[in-house]
Amino acid sequence: MRAQQHNDTSVQVLSFRASDGPGLVAAIADAVAAAGGNILDVGQHSDVETGLFACRLEVDAAVDLEAMKASFDELAATRSISWEHHDAEERARVVLACSRSLPCVSDLLTRSAIGELDCEIAGVVSDKTDAAELAERFDVPFWHLPVGEDRSTQEHQLGELLESLDPDLVVLARYMRVLPAGLAERWENRMINIHHALLPAFAGAAARARAYERGVKIIGATAHYVTPELDGGPIITQDVVRITHRDGVEDLVRAGDDVERTVLASAVRLHLEHRVIVFGNRTCIFD
Amino acid sequence: MRAQQHNDTSVQVLSFRASDGPGLVAAIADAVAAAGGNILDVGQHSDVETGLFACRLEVDAAVDLEAMKASFDELAATRSISWEHHDAEERARVVLACSRSLPCVSDLLTRSAIGELDCEIAGVVSDKTDAAELAERFDVPFWHLPVGEDRSTQEHQLGELLESLDPDLVVLARYMRVLPAGLAERWENRMINIHHALLPAFAGAAARARAYERGVKIIGATAHYVTPELDGGPIITQDVVRITHRDGVEDLVRAGDDVERTVLASAVRLHLEHRVIVFGNRTCIFD
Amino acid sequence: MRAQQHNDTSVQVLSFRASDGPGLVAAIADAVAAAGGNILDVGQHSDVETGLFACRLEVDAAVDLEAMKASFDELAATRSISWEHHDAEERARVVLACSRSLPCVSDLLTRSAIGELDCEIAGVVSDKTDAAELAERFDVPFWHLPVGEDRSTQEHQLGELLESLDPDLVVLARYMRVLPAGLAERWENRMINIHHALLPAFAGAAARARAYERGVKIIGATAHYVTPELDGGPIITQDVVRITHRDGVEDLVRAGDDVERTVLASAVRLHLEHRVIVFGNRTCIFD
Amino acid sequence: MRAQQHNDTSVQVLSFRASDGPGLVAAIADAVAAAGGNILDVGQHSDVETGLFACRLEVDAAVDLEAMKASFDELAATRSISWEHHDAEERARVVLACSRSLPCVSDLLTRSAIGELDCEIAGVVSDKTDAAELAERFDVPFWHLPVGEDRSTQEHQLGELLESLDPDLVVLARYMRVLPAGLAERWENRMINIHHALLPAFAGAAARARAYERGVKIIGATAHYVTPELDGGPIITQDVVRITHRDGVEDLVRAGDDVERTVLASAVRLHLEHRVIVFGNRTCIFD
Repeated sequence: MRAQQHNDTSVQVLSFRASDGPGLVAAIADAVAAAGGNILDVGQHSDVETGLFACRLEVDAAVDLEAMKASFDELAATRSISWEHHDAEERARVVLACSRSLPCVSDLLTRSAIGELDCEIAGVVSDKTDAAELAERFDVPFWHLPVGEDRSTQEHQLGELLESLDPDLVVLARYMRVLPAGLAERWENRMINIHHALLPAFAGAAARARAYERGVKIIGATAHYVTPELDGGPIITQDVVRITHRDGVEDLVRAGDDVERTVLASAVRLHLEHRVIVFGNRTCIFD
Repeated sequence: MRAQQHNDTSVQVLSFRASDGPGLVAAIADAVAAAGGNILDVGQHSDVETGLFACRLEVDAAVDLEAMKASFDELAATRSISWEHHDAEERARVVLACSRSLPCVSDLLTRSAIGELDCEIAGVVSDKTDAAELAERFDVPFWHLPVGEDRSTQEHQLGELLESLDPDLVVLARYMRVLPAGLAERWENRMINIHHALLPAFAGAAARARAYERGVKIIGATAHYVTPELDGGPIITQDVVRITHRDGVEDLVRAGDDVERTVLASAVRLHLEHRVIVFGNRTCIFD
Repeated sequence: MRAQQHNDTSVQVLSFRASDGPGLVAAIADAVAAAGGNILDVGQHSDVETGLFACRLEVDAAVDLEAMKASFDELAATRSISWEHHDAEERARVVLACSRSLPCVSDLLTRSAIGELDCEIAGVVSDKTDAAELAERFDVPFWHLPVGEDRSTQEHQLGELLESLDPDLVVLARYMRVLPAGLAERWENRMINIHHALLPAFAGAAARARAYERGVKIIGATAHYVTPELDGGPIITQDVVRITHRDGVEDLVRAGDDVERTVLASAVRLHLEHRVIVFGNRTCIFD
Repeated sequence: MRAQQHNDTSVQVLSFRASDGPGLVAAIADAVAAAGGNILDVGQHSDVETGLFACRLEVDAAVDLEAMKASFDELAATRSISWEHHDAEERARVVLACSRSLPCVSDLLTRSAIGELDCEIAGVVSDKTDAAELAERFDVPFWHLPVGEDRSTQEHQLGELLESLDPDLVVLARYMRVLPAGLAERWENRMINIHHALLPAFAGAAARARAYERGVKIIGATAHYVTPELDGGPIITQDVVRITHRDGVEDLVRAGDDVERTVLASAVRLHLEHRVIVFGNRTCIFD
């Protein structure tokens, strides 16, 4: 059994990033053992090309948390290593952004409402009003930030709103506007977008129509962290669905909606459970 | 482009079942052509073993509907053929039944609310109260039919309720009770169940726990029409998801929830678009 | 049961392409019925955007073949329709081209040797010698056409060789050279290439390395007809395989080899069974 | 990049099985570090239910192998732990067994011949002669062990042959006979079978025909270690393929052949790379 369940607050989760070198696993494991903890699960990856070391640990409740943290601090002082402890008691606050398409945003609201996603939806923000009724159904605040003549005004408002809400995660659940680079940088590794294609194919807009034009037999969806480069950030999850010559653009959109919502929900869950470690433009997924 | 879109009311959809024989396609196509119609899409299957002929037609709006129907009646009088015309203007009424698990029922409610499923949810019925709040969120009637000392009382109530609601389709969206044979027969080919395994593996209860015990690497879900034989009815859709040794029973349940909701929604959509023709214990899917 | 099995010579297979219009299915079905035939399977598609009609028929052995053909010729004289009859008795002759990578070419040789692919492999041609031993194992002629200082010499030799062999199908089974436009045109709709990515992603060379760089979670393969535009021809089949952060370029190559051989073998089989109809840059697959 | 490539002889691979307890990872990692080694990859699993600890390590070439082994022996003396070192220089010897169906056996022979599977095929044994020509093509010994009046004679011969060949792995590549329990026990965890269904569905013979009868929409294949219980051993890999109402039994066999060969080749590779650790009737796959 995977030790950490989504509402198991007795397990301590830790992430490490370092330059690889001899004895790293031993040093980390020793610190845990010295603090009376037992390692329930190790996810580890050494990237041969970049020399990066990434590790995710689950430690049982018997550990002396403060002693272990102190050991990790010592370790970080002597070796090029950074670490994070994720408090399992703290419930993540998530803001959703969307435009007119509702499958993704409604799916996340529903999963949160029935307890499948262990987070609090702090609100829904949109440049359109289509999702307003839906947000209301789930008793979630809704902000309408329409784009007027000067689109930078709206971008500024969005930035301000996110600052004031201060969420742990922002999810662009079919928010159909390109974000300014500053916003992407501000929320680095804390903002997930769903793209309606199997990146890098069909980056940009109208991916389904272009997939139809090209006569592809498989379409997909990609959830990725947002970076200043459009549709260029680290990929978290991807999935596909088969289509046939009988499927028109509208069929592709519907088939795509299904795969998008599953892919996005999966990426959000992986993030919330601290199973994603970003290195460069790639991700380690410790699932 | 597939001619019939889910809200395209200008296309006429027809289903045919017959004993196979020479000239059936010609006879049907002639009737359409004589009535001024153009065939937009033919789905046809001749089952060599059983000698059954199944066909689904989409005809354009130019057809003289009454003339075409009259020709089909003539055809039915001379050959062993049955046919149905599906009125695209009529919106199907659907009743959902569930117990404690909410992923499937919440997904169907959400899809209906945002217009992905073209039907009216006439209500949710349950032997538990877990779904009550959800139904209320979507302004859908909820009936609680608890099981007391005599389970046949509840079964009778359920039967009565369905009779009074007279829906076009009943969806058992994780309704965890075995239905009496009479009810299964009454709603033959109009009652869809989601089973939490890839039938015929793990029929009956606790499929996920038994999949875990057996150490399988793939789990699945099956949507099927309900028949008196438990989990034995005609299969409409199936899908799978991969799991690993790290996944415990709880992980299997969660992974299974995802595939169940997609499989069930897909089966409901196929049924609503008249894309399923049952022959014996099997289905033709004209998608 | 699908009527035509790969070595069932009693079934007549016909393909039709036409501008769509009322009564086409009826006219075709009438011609079959008038010649005493029974339609075992209809695959039909009307493309709403382009107005193209494509149809594949399987007719039973009772049909008067010459009478049916005469009717189709009459039909073709009055309406804008073209048709083909595929003689099930004639076994297709196939030439394979490859370079250094052997998974695809060895798979096709093996499938042909054990009767899974119903064709005669007329020979293997390569710009390298790696496949020579393999061809010998399967008693298949091998031609080595190395590229010297002037690559057009080799291209000319290849063209001449194909002319002299006069195969029904040419399969580029990881032939790593760009073909001259003339050759692509000469073998239009009779030359299949396997591309080591899910086109249109990663067109051109080194697709696996570029997929690794981008950090994708899914890789794929595409079998398509060759056209003068590099990797731009009509797609026949595609499939994918999941990868993780632990997979290096070499792992991607190996995982990709598996999906490539399956995708290519599937495309070759579809072509050999006349299940592919090309319209514009897209394909109808009547499987 | 995954450290161990299939022909990378500089990496040391180690497997551990133990009763779980505090400090196990630390103790193992310390032993590696003390011997000057660097851990390139850790695969670890603690099974909460059974209390079993399984671990797979890849250590770089800098390690003092004898010193590390001595440390592990010490560890094993004090804690309930067993360990294995897999010599990367030693090439596994594999015996294939088959009957009349050739897709799986031909695929393994081909993959071995072109270097995709890093092993030596020591021979092919069969109760039929269908594979004889194929074995000859690949210059591999072939033994024909027909079943006469007393099937135990043949079983005895098979047992003797395997003893004399003494392979590292036996692969039942569609060998259509039930093995005696003694043979299954003798080759425990060293004999892999491919079953033509997604176990536990359709255990036993004629799985494809029974899948057709049940009208399933997905078929699959399962590679598992052989145990005395028929089709009941630990599952290594599974995969599926979609089918439709148009597919007859023969189509299911063909579609199944494709998925079987991929699943079996994958299981053999995982075994050869020491990525499978069996616990009870389940497997950990460290891929």
